[in-house]
Amino acid sequence: MYVETQYFTIAKYPDSFVLESGRTISPVTLAYESYGVLNGAGDNAILIAQGFTASAHAAGIDRRTGQVGWWDQMIGPGKAFDTDLFFVISINVLGGCSGSTGPASMNPETRRPFGKTFPVVTIFDMVSAQYELLKALGVNSLASVSGASMGGQQVLQWLVTYPDFVRSAIPIACSARLSAMGLAICEVSRTAIISDPDWHDGDYYGKTLPARGLALARMAAQLTYISGDFLDTEFGRNHAVPRKSTQSIGSEFAVQQYLQDEGQAFVKRFDANSFLYLSQAIEHFDLTKGLNCLSDAFAAVTSRVMLISFTTDWLFPVSHVHEVAIAMRDQNVDVSHVTVQTTFGHDAFLTDWQKISPIISEFLS
Amino acid sequence: MYVETQYFTIAKYPDSFVLESGRTISPVTLAYESYGVLNGAGDNAILIAQGFTASAHAAGIDRRTGQVGWWDQMIGPGKAFDTDLFFVISINVLGGCSGSTGPASMNPETRRPFGKTFPVVTIFDMVSAQYELLKALGVNSLASVSGASMGGQQVLQWLVTYPDFVRSAIPIACSARLSAMGLAICEVSRTAIISDPDWHDGDYYGKTLPARGLALARMAAQLTYISGDFLDTEFGRNHAVPRKSTQSIGSEFAVQQYLQDEGQAFVKRFDANSFLYLSQAIEHFDLTKGLNCLSDAFAAVTSRVMLISFTTDWLFPVSHVHEVAIAMRDQNVDVSHVTVQTTFGHDAFLTDWQKISPIISEFLS
Repeated sequence: MYVETQYFTIAKYPDSFVLESGRTISPVTLAYESYGVLNGAGDNAILIAQGFTASAHAAGIDRRTGQVGWWDQMIGPGKAFDTDLFFVISINVLGGCSGSTGPASMNPETRRPFGKTFPVVTIFDMVSAQYELLKALGVNSLASVSGASMGGQQVLQWLVTYPDFVRSAIPIACSARLSAMGLAICEVSRTAIISDPDWHDGDYYGKTLPARGLALARMAAQLTYISGDFLDTEFGRNHAVPRKSTQSIGSEFAVQQYLQDEGQAFVKRFDANSFLYLSQAIEHFDLTKGLNCLSDAFAAVTSRVMLISFTTDWLFPVSHVHEVAIAMRDQNVDVSHVTVQTTFGHDAFLTDWQKISPIISEFLS
Repeated sequence: MYVETQYFTIAKYPDSFVLESGRTISPVTLAYESYGVLNGAGDNAILIAQGFTASAHAAGIDRRTGQVGWWDQMIGPGKAFDTDLFFVISINVLGGCSGSTGPASMNPETRRPFGKTFPVVTIFDMVSAQYELLKALGVNSLASVSGASMGGQQVLQWLVTYPDFVRSAIPIACSARLSAMGLAICEVSRTAIISDPDWHDGDYYGKTLPARGLALARMAAQLTYISGDFLDTEFGRNHAVPRKSTQSIGSEFAVQQYLQDEGQAFVKRFDANSFLYLSQAIEHFDLTKGLNCLSDAFAAVTSRVMLISFTTDWLFPVSHVHEVAIAMRDQNVDVSHVTVQTTFGHDAFLTDWQKISPIISEFLS
């Protein structure tokens, strides 16, 4: 299945899109892909919300690059998100750097990239921008919305903000708010970027990119996506194959070379400022904000919900996901919580897709 | 109890100290402190081996700086390491930066700091240097040797290398070799340092120090010393008290400010090259090297051993410590393994000292 990323401008300059903070952005374009066919009633759509560093290219083979989508194992004819039945849409988030408006985009008023003048975006903003796009595409209600990690945060926000638009939801590996350890890890990654002299307070476009800082930010973040068990099994204490490297000391072990490779690959596809903005959105996300308790957040939810968590996820531990299930139950939401036994850690939504596929298929059928 | 750090040169220039690698260093001085009195037989000594970033100043109040030792709660009259009974010695490791010879020391041949020309040091080298010092001080055998983390690795090395010199041992929060996750975290910290342009391939002495890289290295490492539970209880999602900061973005949460403060405090007391050398020693440590199985390493051990692990330690999980206990039992070593229930994580050996004090007292009595 060959696919092509599409673009839709939900706010054409000089019109602007109003953010949760009250600030505005103009213009706002969203990159998206769709798989399957929207029915006449406009009610067979499933929205796939992307994780932190993913893109709109969730499935199929990109006609231009030949690259396979990040959740291709899950989306397609007869797959968990079955495109024979559903119109599946995947959208690059507002603030991202894979086609949607973000800090690397051109500010039409200065004719230079926004950089740090880009306004703060929140998970709420991502979701309300998605809502605009879905309406423009003729979607009248979502059969389901799913996503993991930051994608899961978007799913929870959808339930809270547009309860009548969403008939079912599958939030994966996420919680109602990031833990203190999560906040701490974000701080390490952020500091890696802004400590890089090439970051230049966010104004590095057209100059040397803050590649060292961004690679390091990714290396630190990557450790939260995987489990110690996975690393022990995959690499253990194996030595790296020696190769010419920019490292002047260390990186003797295979797991260390793997981490360096992750960092180097990442800087080729991601913008450092987007990293900062999206990680800030993840940090700020807190469904209890202004409420007495979490369950109050779910008072209006009428959708069926299935939460999925992974036993070895230490970024969003099972107990944190379970807290969401309990809070929903307090509001009599039709919610289930499936905990998947896996050694893959947080990234199990990508790597252990064979375990979650049948669970999702059954929930959607 | 006022104390003063002492210095002893185990290899006076041009004499040299031979390392495990066959390379040599000259001169080699060790900084140490002692508490209590050595008996006539020279057999009531307890060696305290330091963790990664500690110093010889383990107990009492430093006469010069007024600073309290890092394990003062545990060492003193009537305390777990009872100085009424024992002659307790704490030594800054070879390769360190708190008085012992390390990469920041002057190379007498070039009259410049060694920097990256300092030879690789191993846990074995640290221990054999300690042995030289102990003999020079008149110690004929150790009543016990204890330490946590890298200190625990030294304790295990003592058991293996000098089995007849050690009558008992208390390795805490350590294992026979670092896990793949541990290796990965070391890589993040190392990369933080060597990515700092001020690191200058290790030749930064007398110039701008690689403070940003070293602070970041500490921030990443710090996360492995504590548990998520601890951070949730201590900071949760509390907001930081706003203050003038060098940070131009983020650090809004208390846990993030705490981490920044940890990093900033660390650069005032630690040398970046020492960080690299000691973390390499921790990585290389592997008691199974050249053996068929771990238990073979303990064939000559005759000491009583008590291993201590912490339930929330994710750097050296309980199961990794237990592997050591099992291997010792295979060799009929008189070994026990005490797992302490604690929320403090790896650093519980410092923060939850009230729980480990009675356990150690009983073992030593």
